[in-house]
Amino acid sequence: MNLQTPPGQTTTRDDYPTRLADEERLMPRQDPVIWSEWSETAPISRAEADSYIDNGYLIRRDLFSGDEVQMLVETADKLRETGEGIPDEDLIREPESQAVRTIFRLDRHSSAFRRLACDDRLAGVAQFLLGDRVYLHQSRLNYKPGFAGKEFYWHSDFETWHAEDGMPRMRAVSASVLLTDNGAHNGPLMLVPGSHETFICCLGETPDANFRTSLKRQEVGVPQPETIEKLAGKHGIDAAEGPTGTVIFFECNTLHGSNGNITPDPRANAFFVYNAMSNALTSPYAADKPRPGFLANRETPEAIRPMSGKLTEG
Amino acid sequence: MNLQTPPGQTTTRDDYPTRLADEERLMPRQDPVIWSEWSETAPISRAEADSYIDNGYLIRRDLFSGDEVQMLVETADKLRETGEGIPDEDLIREPESQAVRTIFRLDRHSSAFRRLACDDRLAGVAQFLLGDRVYLHQSRLNYKPGFAGKEFYWHSDFETWHAEDGMPRMRAVSASVLLTDNGAHNGPLMLVPGSHETFICCLGETPDANFRTSLKRQEVGVPQPETIEKLAGKHGIDAAEGPTGTVIFFECNTLHGSNGNITPDPRANAFFVYNAMSNALTSPYAADKPRPGFLANRETPEAIRPMSGKLTEG
Repeated sequence: MNLQTPPGQTTTRDDYPTRLADEERLMPRQDPVIWSEWSETAPISRAEADSYIDNGYLIRRDLFSGDEVQMLVETADKLRETGEGIPDEDLIREPESQAVRTIFRLDRHSSAFRRLACDDRLAGVAQFLLGDRVYLHQSRLNYKPGFAGKEFYWHSDFETWHAEDGMPRMRAVSASVLLTDNGAHNGPLMLVPGSHETFICCLGETPDANFRTSLKRQEVGVPQPETIEKLAGKHGIDAAEGPTGTVIFFECNTLHGSNGNITPDPRANAFFVYNAMSNALTSPYAADKPRPGFLANRETPEAIRPMSGKLTEG
Repeated sequence: MNLQTPPGQTTTRDDYPTRLADEERLMPRQDPVIWSEWSETAPISRAEADSYIDNGYLIRRDLFSGDEVQMLVETADKLRETGEGIPDEDLIREPESQAVRTIFRLDRHSSAFRRLACDDRLAGVAQFLLGDRVYLHQSRLNYKPGFAGKEFYWHSDFETWHAEDGMPRMRAVSASVLLTDNGAHNGPLMLVPGSHETFICCLGETPDANFRTSLKRQEVGVPQPETIEKLAGKHGIDAAEGPTGTVIFFECNTLHGSNGNITPDPRANAFFVYNAMSNALTSPYAADKPRPGFLANRETPEAIRPMSGKLTEG
């Protein structure tokens, strides 16, 4: 592992070319998976670190107490019920019922979730994985009701963040905190172990304001079926099942997606993307204009100071 | 259990009114679940019979030898590749690729699958469950490719067979023979245990030629979300996972559905609906015209004579 890797000569060379006009290409990852050396003081065990390096994700089912989980669920329910005081640009509502489906910039709209984002058990792990101080590239609360929950097709987040947001290197990690039980039947997050080692240079130029449709169904920046088959054929597909409170850390280039959900059981999660301070956004690598701030934090990023102790409402 | 239950005074009274104009209603099942008394000579164990009575389905993972399963898979692949000699009315093809997705009247188009339909391990079990000689109400080969396999919403088959085909009583059973491995990730058949005990009198009148759209997405004859929640809340949801060759017997009124499938793994099965000879179709109970013969066998039905011994190609 290399602590000194510079953030990349991104102004002169693009190490991860994508949105290609001619054909999809595969290339090896150019960055470490974990940017720190493991030691006894690391916030995850050596076995967990090795598993993250091999698979590109880590599932923790024991990070928060029952009280903490209950507080988060209740806070999320209240936020969704009202959406009060949250500007329209940070909300996605159901077209028919007007029910809140997504709250972006969650860390700004809820002190409890800001506290969660800064918690040592998330931000401390992110600092270790990225070998740097970290900031929030994106944060949101997602709620998908049962019966008609749509699928989300396979993709690498980094591919979009690089192409459309200007994220230079693979030095970011997402933490998804489950706010409902997520089992095999109600469309859990599925991940392709080992897929983070391959960058898929995707086919297709980025349309203007692609984010307006790609939040619902991504059409550009998705791999070809044969490529998914090839990568999944190597190591299979894993589903991040777990009870409410489970945390899934997944590396920014790990291929993931989820099936739809016809069961009555809804899915909800809080989603935080930690990026290394040294990996701040530049101009998009494959789009005319950067995406809006609720999707990609372009303001002078502020490093998180991880906090320990029991979660509180803020 | 009652071996003497008549096929119903269906010309004078409808025991299962559905496609109602005003509101959905729930009523208790009016028929036995198993129409035979269990004895030592029954083709399933007493525990299996009890489980079928309680749950409305039975999963058998050990019925066929590896050779037999391989022969069925190869036969299905060949049938799909060509579709040769099969009339258009019995085929559903993918709109774009023209690949064969469904072959109806499978027992007429393949001697191997006709032999399978008549096998003691399927037809013998059906005879026992229905307490009568049996015939095929419907048979088909289904193939759903990976990556974009659509979901199928919760429904009771009997509701449609009664409303649109004129099947008098709950005296039919489906056998689904898996021709691919079906795990949690690639949209296995999901069933609501115990749901066969309740008939859901569904809301909404039957449109003309409803089958043309309902084969893709059923909109009439489906229960309200609250009803599914209530029934699934009692006993949960079970997924019929299993390797190729697994057989799922499910009672005609058991609520079932399946999630979509974004994984590379396709799903395929051979599907046989056995109906009791004494339960032959009359006029539809809630539709103007009966559905075509490939969906509901209205010809003078011929009783199956169950055959024992190893499956052959026909």
